[in-house]
Parts: sequence; C-alpha cells; structure tokens
Amino acid sequence: MHSESGEIMVGHTRRYQYFFIPAFLLLLLLALPGAAPASGSGDPLPGWRDGPAKKAIIDFVDRVTKKGGPDYVPPAERIAVFDNDGTLWAEQPFYFQLAFVLDRVKALAGKHPEWKNKEPFATALSGDRARLDRLNHDDFIKLLTATHTGMTSQEFQATVRAWLQKARHPQTGLPYTGMVYQPMLELLRYLAKNGFINFIVTGGGIDFVRAFAEKVYGVPPERVVGTSLKGKWQIKDGKPVIIKLPQLASFNDKEAKPLNINLHIGRRPILAAGNSDGDLAMLQWTAAGQGARLMLLVHHDDAAREYAYDRDSSIGRLDKAWDEAKRRGWSVISMRNDFARIYPGAGK
Amino acid sequence: MHSESGEIMVGHTRRYQYFFIPAFLLLLLLALPGAAPASGSGDPLPGWRDGPAKKAIIDFVDRVTKKGGPDYVPPAERIAVFDNDGTLWAEQPFYFQLAFVLDRVKALAGKHPEWKNKEPFATALSGDRARLDRLNHDDFIKLLTATHTGMTSQEFQATVRAWLQKARHPQTGLPYTGMVYQPMLELLRYLAKNGFINFIVTGGGIDFVRAFAEKVYGVPPERVVGTSLKGKWQIKDGKPVIIKLPQLASFNDKEAKPLNINLHIGRRPILAAGNSDGDLAMLQWTAAGQGARLMLLVHHDDAAREYAYDRDSSIGRLDKAWDEAKRRGWSVISMRNDFARIYPGAGK
Repeated sequence: MHSESGEIMVGHTRRYQYFFIPAFLLLLLLALPGAAPASGSGDPLPGWRDGPAKKAIIDFVDRVTKKGGPDYVPPAERIAVFDNDGTLWAEQPFYFQLAFVLDRVKALAGKHPEWKNKEPFATALSGDRARLDRLNHDDFIKLLTATHTGMTSQEFQATVRAWLQKARHPQTGLPYTGMVYQPMLELLRYLAKNGFINFIVTGGGIDFVRAFAEKVYGVPPERVVGTSLKGKWQIKDGKPVIIKLPQLASFNDKEAKPLNINLHIGRRPILAAGNSDGDLAMLQWTAAGQGARLMLLVHHDDAAREYAYDRDSSIGRLDKAWDEAKRRGWSVISMRNDFARIYPGAGK
Repeated sequence: MHSESGEIMVGHTRRYQYFFIPAFLLLLLLALPGAAPASGSGDPLPGWRDGPAKKAIIDFVDRVTKKGGPDYVPPAERIAVFDNDGTLWAEQPFYFQLAFVLDRVKALAGKHPEWKNKEPFATALSGDRARLDRLNHDDFIKLLTATHTGMTSQEFQATVRAWLQKARHPQTGLPYTGMVYQPMLELLRYLAKNGFINFIVTGGGIDFVRAFAEKVYGVPPERVVGTSLKGKWQIKDGKPVIIKLPQLASFNDKEAKPLNINLHIGRRPILAAGNSDGDLAMLQWTAAGQGARLMLLVHHDDAAREYAYDRDSSIGRLDKAWDEAKRRGWSVISMRNDFARIYPGAGK
C-alpha cells in the first residue's frame, strides 16, 4: 500500500511539475511589471531622499490605489500631468529647445543670406549670450516658425532626434536627454506601475517633445500636450502629407495648460507636477478637483549639482506658484534636499 | 526506501499544491482579459457574418500581432481611429447630437423669448421636419454654440447624460445609446484585447461624445477627438473653472480629422473606420502609412434593419470615399450582408 501510494504520488507530482513551471514563470511575469508599489529592492524611489516630498508621493499613491479605501481612484481616472522644462529635465542656461532652434538657424543660414541682417536671426546667428538674453517671446516665435515649419511632423521629429544624438550641453557636456532628472524618471515609472496614466503638458513644442518622450520618459506621443503650430493638409504625388505652417495654434503655457488638458485629456488630473509660474494654472486646476490630489512643485535650489535660480529668474520663474504652494500646502520638492541623484548617468 | 520516497513525494506534492492553486488562478486571470484573438466561444466577432469584411479584420489583427511576423506592429503603435456618427452608432433621420440640440433649444426657450422670431431658433422650435432639413452648417453652429456654451465641460456632459437617459429615437423608440452597432462594439473590444489603442475621431462635439464614450464604447475621454469650442479660464469664488465659449475651435470633419489626429495622437493610425466622405481624409492618412493597414468603410445598405442611404444622402454621403475604397481595395462593410446583428438589445 505504501508502495502504491508512493507511486500515485509520483504520478501526481509529475503532473504538478508541469503546472509548477508555468506557475513560476507567471509569478515572475506578474512580479516584473510590478503591480505592487515597490519593485525589486522595496524602495520604488531610490533616487529620492527620505523626506516630506517622497513621503507625500508614496502616501498619495497608496491612498488612491487602495481598493475599498476612502481615497480610491479607478485606474482610468489616475491622470498625472507633468511639465517638462525644469520639471522633467533641466532648462538652464536656456530652454533646450532654444539650443535646438539656434543650431537650426545656423544650419539653415546658408539658404537664407538675408538672415545676417535681419532680426531676430542676426542675434540668433551671433551666438552672443548677452544679445540672446534680450530675445523676447515674439522673437522666439519667429525663430521657431522659421525653423520648425515647411516639413511634416515626422520629418521634423527626425531632425530633432538627429540633433539630440549629437548636441551637447554647453556646461555639463552631457547630451540633453542625459539631463533628465533621475528621481522624476523613477516617479513616472512608479506611477505607471501603479496604474497612472502619465501625460506631459509642456510649453515646449509638441513635436519637439514627442521626438524623445516615448524613449526617454515612456510617454507615448498621444500623451504629450504642448505648444503647437497649425498644419496644412495636402495631396502630394497622390499621397497625403501634413505640412507644419508658420502659424501658432496654441502656446501651451499658463492658462493654456488647463485649457489644453481639457481639450486633449478631457478629465481632471489627480496629480500635477511643475516648477514655475507657467504651471500655476495647471496645478490650480488639478487641486480644485474633488477627492485626493497631489500637487508637486520642483524647486531649483541646488547650485552645486544643478542650478539655483527659480525664485527670481526669467526662465522658470517661481513666484506666484510658490506663494500658492505655501498657502495651500502643496509639496515643494527641494532638489538639494529631496533628490539623492540629479541625472541618470552621473554619480552625483 | 519506498516508504521514505513516498513520504518525500507527499511533501513535494503538498508544496506543489500551493503553487498549483495560484497557477490555476493566474492562468484564469491571463485567459480572461484575453491575450488570444478569440474569447469564450472562439469567435471574437459573433455579430459579424462570415465574409470578406470579417476575414479582412481577423487577418489584419493576426498579422500585426504576430510576433516575429513581417507585419508585426508593437502595441504602442496599434492606433485605431473610428468615426462615430454612422460608423459606431446610427445617424438617421438626423445626427443624434442634433436631436439633443433641438431638445436643448426647447428647454432653454423660456429664457430666450426672442428665439421665437429669430432664425435658426424659430425653425428649431417649430419641430417641422421640412424646415429643419433646410438648416445649413452655419445654422447648426449657431444652435450648437447657443446650447453648448456658458457652462463647464463637466456641467455640459451631465446635461448630455441626463438627456441620453430619457430621450428616445423617434423611429425605433430606442435610447440613442441603444443604437450603437453591436458588430462595431465587438470590433472595439476585439481590438482592445489585441493591444490596440482605440480612438474616436468624430465630427460630433468632443464633450458630447465624451459624455458616453467610456461607458458605451470603452473609450476614455483622452481618446475622443471631436469638434471643439474654445474655452475660457477664470477664477470664480477662488476656484478655477473653464467655461465653454461660443467660438468654434475646430470643426473636426474632412481634412481636420487627420490634422487633429496629428495634434492629439501624434502617430499615424494603422486602422481607420468611417462611413462617409467626411472620413475620406482620415482613411487616406491611415492608408498612406508604411506597413500593414486596414481601412474600413461602413456602407448603409440595410433598409430593413437600419437605413439605406449613404450613396446619395445629405447626412453621411458616401461618394468620393466609395470610389477611393473601390480603387484602393479598402474593406467596404455591407451592413446588410456583414452584420449578423445591428443593435445590442434587438434580436435582429
């Protein structure tokens, strides 16, 4: 009987073994994309130092993902919006897209001899920092439309990608996409793992940011909302093309951010992250919704590892949004205190 | 030895049993959301009759989801765009949104005594079919802006939802959302199960369609692209609100469809479905991409179960798009032949 029982067991065991292998693989599969808040080490945000900002993030994610909890939010409604310049990557000594624009003006100058004596092109070609600093919003729009139009979005994005491959930041020597903030990359990933739908809502050009957002941030093109130009539909050699026109459709800054969130997303975010007064309206819009909300304000106070500037700066000025954050208890992220690392590649 | 071996086996077996249960549950879990083309019965599209349209759909999905195959498309790029009126739900004897607009004009007429003697409102209030038929595009925009503005998107959508609950189609007596096409619901679900990202790209109002698209089609608001009005940001009692303005931002028809696909999605669809000349540009835009593509044209040829009209109609006219479909071999869906059922609730 023992013997028979033993043999039966062997039979069962073998059958169970067939299940054991897929079970083990399936457990691995489920564990890897990580439904749980933490992945691997247990700390989902190793690039963040322990402190009020990190705690606010983890508490918020725990609350809105806790089924049956009072703050539970279904995955489809877990909309998170992120500014880009100064929030996901650096923006000093000038917006990175401006570096691209200036390089494009230089590259195209041969075809436009008149630019040498025509502003704002002459200034753009001079490379003179003092003169460049005096360019205003209208000048920037002129440079933008001159360099970003007359081609398709696809052709434009290919140009951006080729530029990102070669261009280096004048101060760090890093590729511009190497100057994304490691803690924010971790935050994007952590949110995505917890069922959030991450959007970028940027004052930068929509096609410019789409050129790298999927690869660098894991944010696909349909979740990038940005400054946009009008397009023109035409049939060329029997094939339809959409050509970028030198006409601004939407300058996605300040109040335009919530207006475009309403247009593109159609649902109020429950999390918003920005770094300047240009993000105030987006943060207010997010804060004014019902239920749990998290508003994050990146504060550039790390002169040693990044830059310290925002409180009295022309780029990324943080004045009204700072006051509102203090008044309403939004989370201010001190890059000096809260970021254990700044850039992905650098040790510091 | 036998005895010892038997006991060891019992031990292993028990341990395997712990894995067996989660393995079984996990297999179930993976099977339910359906990574496989078919769910349940084996036919993912039971509302479709066997024929060239159904075959084209299943072949296409098989090809683009076959890893390692020549036509494989990664899930992030499986963008599918659907027109709404006449493609996902009926549009006769008039666009359903027009029924909403007319009901709103009636509901608001008490506050606007001047409408009685002012066109196009007088016609809208008359309910006279012959007069209504003579309303043109500008009239419709006037009625739309008068009834769709001065409130937030959220308030507007609540009004739409309340209307959808009560309103009944004048000919079928069905709720308007009961006149979505069962085969198209199955197609949306089938595509979603196969990793596609479904968008609605409609000439209808973006807020109107967003009011029901998630519940009825499983398409969340951020994947609805439609005709839009401008919005105004204001702070009211310390709270930000976005008020819908009586100014058209984009009339999402014809060439505007691919232009708005470029703006909102930023990636070329690999599948497009429409039913009229208003969808031609969207279909052309989709067709002109590289790699496997599927263009579907719903043909209203079923006078018995739905309507037969499109080839010479003012609503949903199918003329140029028909010629292009024939010339280029796009899939024409005959509602009479290809749809085994029309509406979800009805037996027929």
